[in-house]
Amino acid sequence: MSEFNINALDDVIHGRIRLGVMAYLVGAETADFSALKTHLGTTDGNLSVHLRKLEEAGYVTIEKSFRGRKPLTAVSLTPSGREAFTQYLGALSGLIGKS
Amino acid sequence: MSEFNINALDDVIHGRIRLGVMAYLVGAETADFSALKTHLGTTDGNLSVHLRKLEEAGYVTIEKSFRGRKPLTAVSLTPSGREAFTQYLGALSGLIGKS
Repeated sequence: MSEFNINALDDVIHGRIRLGVMAYLVGAETADFSALKTHLGTTDGNLSVHLRKLEEAGYVTIEKSFRGRKPLTAVSLTPSGREAFTQYLGALSGLIGKS
Repeated sequence: MSEFNINALDDVIHGRIRLGVMAYLVGAETADFSALKTHLGTTDGNLSVHLRKLEEAGYVTIEKSFRGRKPLTAVSLTPSGREAFTQYLGALSGLIGKS
């Protein structure tokens, strides 16, 4: 009845905040923690939790540094994150065109 | 950086099981509880919880009847459910084509 298979959807990516992070990074490659937080309208704590999950999956890397005294946290998409996102979009594409 | 706005994604639909139900019903209009359960590879309890959430949102109707002594639970997409799903796909479509 449907070509769409929910089991093909990567759970790590499907979560809303994580999906937002991945979608942003696919365009930006690297983003500062604060920029992501603003873009997604979320909190430090919530964003940290989701970034850690993406990092554990190997989809992003997180690098902390300082610009002067100001801490900077750079979040970057990895090649395997990009690949996983492409597969996620492929799984979703069965949905598009429906309705 | 991204045209995709996660806040435009309907949370009621975005949950994996609920997304699977909606995608199935967009094709089938009406489905039996058991057929949905098999299609989605989930349990009675889990499916019931998610169907209730979709019903509370007005996206599906649930009708119980009997075929002989066998209980039948028919789940149907409502017009407002179809509309919400169309909007959900619209919100997602900003994602497709990325990567």
